[in-house]
Amino acid sequence: MVNIAVLGYGTVGSGVVEVLRTNQESIDNKAGEHINLKYVLDLREFPGDYIENVLVHDYDVILKDEDVKVVVEVMGGVNPAYSFVKSALLAGKSVCTSNKELVAKHGAELLAIAAEHKANFFFEASVGGGIPIIRPLNQSLTADEILEISGILNGTTNFILTKMDKEGVSYEEVLKEAQKLGYAERNPEADVEGYDACRKIAILSSLACGKQVDYEDIYTEGITKLTDLDFMYAKEMGLTIKLIGSAKKTGNRFSAMVSPKLISNEHPLAGVNGVMNAIFVKGNVLGDVMFYGAGAGKLPTASAVVSDVVDAVRHLGENVETKWSQEKLELIPHDEVCSNFFVRIKGSLDRLPEIEEKFGTVDTISITEGEFGFITGMMSEKAYADAAASTEGIISMIRYEK
Amino acid sequence: MVNIAVLGYGTVGSGVVEVLRTNQESIDNKAGEHINLKYVLDLREFPGDYIENVLVHDYDVILKDEDVKVVVEVMGGVNPAYSFVKSALLAGKSVCTSNKELVAKHGAELLAIAAEHKANFFFEASVGGGIPIIRPLNQSLTADEILEISGILNGTTNFILTKMDKEGVSYEEVLKEAQKLGYAERNPEADVEGYDACRKIAILSSLACGKQVDYEDIYTEGITKLTDLDFMYAKEMGLTIKLIGSAKKTGNRFSAMVSPKLISNEHPLAGVNGVMNAIFVKGNVLGDVMFYGAGAGKLPTASAVVSDVVDAVRHLGENVETKWSQEKLELIPHDEVCSNFFVRIKGSLDRLPEIEEKFGTVDTISITEGEFGFITGMMSEKAYADAAASTEGIISMIRYEK
Repeated sequence: MVNIAVLGYGTVGSGVVEVLRTNQESIDNKAGEHINLKYVLDLREFPGDYIENVLVHDYDVILKDEDVKVVVEVMGGVNPAYSFVKSALLAGKSVCTSNKELVAKHGAELLAIAAEHKANFFFEASVGGGIPIIRPLNQSLTADEILEISGILNGTTNFILTKMDKEGVSYEEVLKEAQKLGYAERNPEADVEGYDACRKIAILSSLACGKQVDYEDIYTEGITKLTDLDFMYAKEMGLTIKLIGSAKKTGNRFSAMVSPKLISNEHPLAGVNGVMNAIFVKGNVLGDVMFYGAGAGKLPTASAVVSDVVDAVRHLGENVETKWSQEKLELIPHDEVCSNFFVRIKGSLDRLPEIEEKFGTVDTISITEGEFGFITGMMSEKAYADAAASTEGIISMIRYEK
Repeated sequence: MVNIAVLGYGTVGSGVVEVLRTNQESIDNKAGEHINLKYVLDLREFPGDYIENVLVHDYDVILKDEDVKVVVEVMGGVNPAYSFVKSALLAGKSVCTSNKELVAKHGAELLAIAAEHKANFFFEASVGGGIPIIRPLNQSLTADEILEISGILNGTTNFILTKMDKEGVSYEEVLKEAQKLGYAERNPEADVEGYDACRKIAILSSLACGKQVDYEDIYTEGITKLTDLDFMYAKEMGLTIKLIGSAKKTGNRFSAMVSPKLISNEHPLAGVNGVMNAIFVKGNVLGDVMFYGAGAGKLPTASAVVSDVVDAVRHLGENVETKWSQEKLELIPHDEVCSNFFVRIKGSLDRLPEIEEKFGTVDTISITEGEFGFITGMMSEKAYADAAASTEGIISMIRYEK
């Protein structure tokens, strides 16, 4: 029997308890040990709830109990999660977490502490909810140099963009619906401004390169400026718009970015709709693979957390190495990153000579009065910004992933 | 340093050597040891080739060399692969294979021998080429009861069906093109009759239920009878046709089948086109996940084999448990398996009363003269077969996965 404790009895925490109860027998069988829920930590009371008798309010009870071998951290936020997790690992307990902020900020340090103490720090649920991606990156894609990871990493924004694409409704209207359905928070900033996706691509980038990628260094642009007209242009070009978090290797350097991107309808990510997430990985020998599933939600996320618990129980007293050192990786400066740019601009095609003088050869598209669109060749962010600064009447710009 | 031997220097074998050479440094880093190619076994000579100096013709040289810790079997076919692999495992060497026939037929036995001898038998490349699916099933989806695994498991047939769907060309025409491009063998039977997909779903089913599913027990139907008119009906109904290998849990029993299926364009598998493969998994708490990528090809397959080698080197002297016992699983008899059936039949809609009397309430569709189509409600294979046997003029039947 292995005793575990769950920190936080919110959505994911209660999901973890539910998954353990629902599949106890098969989970125990796969772990090779009976997994016993000894404690749940929460500041609140839950009278009458299943966990009533294992509920504690003081973390020290868990920390000091040597029988607790695995701690599940599903409180979210950096504090006090960070100090709880660190002290658990220092005490030789393994930790499984769904906390992307914690992992993005302190993952490398916590992995190092876990290794020193022959324990494990697992975080499958921190990216892509129930989609297996962290363990496959660490243990399956080991024959490859990872050249690119691009993902639809946030279900809220993907729900909004899918509705805008399929039903031609405005951003504001869909956001309201998403809030009503519980897919978007009342304050949706973390989702719609791309901050959530940014934490997740920081984690994936760090695992791809084995070094620390700070999320603060990742250029991040949200979806709040997209309009129904942008989607009409996209449709006309056989493209769709997705919020993509991506990391790419160019030579020996990495770039990373979160932004809306125009992608071909033939791209594997184009068919990922609604609240679903997917992570696309390109290896230098493997080629393209993609992992698809529910990127959030109580039970899918809890399923990923519990799969980490099983792995932690299988490896008690033994560290499973994850390559992610604390050495900071300097990303390619955003100015130097190259893209194709789709630009909407006021006026008519008569402006083409002026535009091509500034942006080089472009492809144009015209679908409505008073404005038109053009797609540049590959150019750096700086070259684009310089050209755009000296051009009158630019309405909007979306990067285009060919 | 860990010495390995590669059995068979064909497409996959030479790919394995190429992957090791291309990414030697990062592979060694991930394995924690230098991986040294000590032998390649092949009956042929390869004068001037990189492997010329490590080439041997006698398997005993490899078997008797105690320095060889990992054997890569990429010869294909059951014999002599089976005796080579078995003797390697009995000698305590780990084995990594891409050989689906071997795994489907002897996987459970070879896993047991590996466990007894503190070695490993890994076979990531045997299903889905480069797509990580075996390791995720064993190590990531451990919190779930697997309710369904459905996959596009054969690239040749998916290439043919995609062409028929998108370009409206006939089966015979596309098969010729696929043969010219090297996607289909001169004798395409193993692919087009579904035998290859059958081996693969047998492996996945066995892993999902932890027991032996014999491929001979799996009802298997190929794509040779599909016509361009079938695809016209599909298009009209907003569906597409894919060759699907699937295993499903009903109560405590499993069914398994390989057959062409009509699926909705919204289904994640519908967007899997050309030679790509994908495996869709439904867990009881996780919901739906899908794994997508190149299902064949020299380098993707070799990438999966080498990822197994890395895992084998990480676990020298230690068995990684795979739940797949030799106990045979009795599948639900094919007669009892339930589906919706899409049927094309001669005549006009005047025949509806007669049809509904035999098949129950149906939906009809009419797109051409002299025939029409109908979709039944859920009914068993036996009920369908009985009804069909007493009905004149049935042209074709395709199962419909709602």
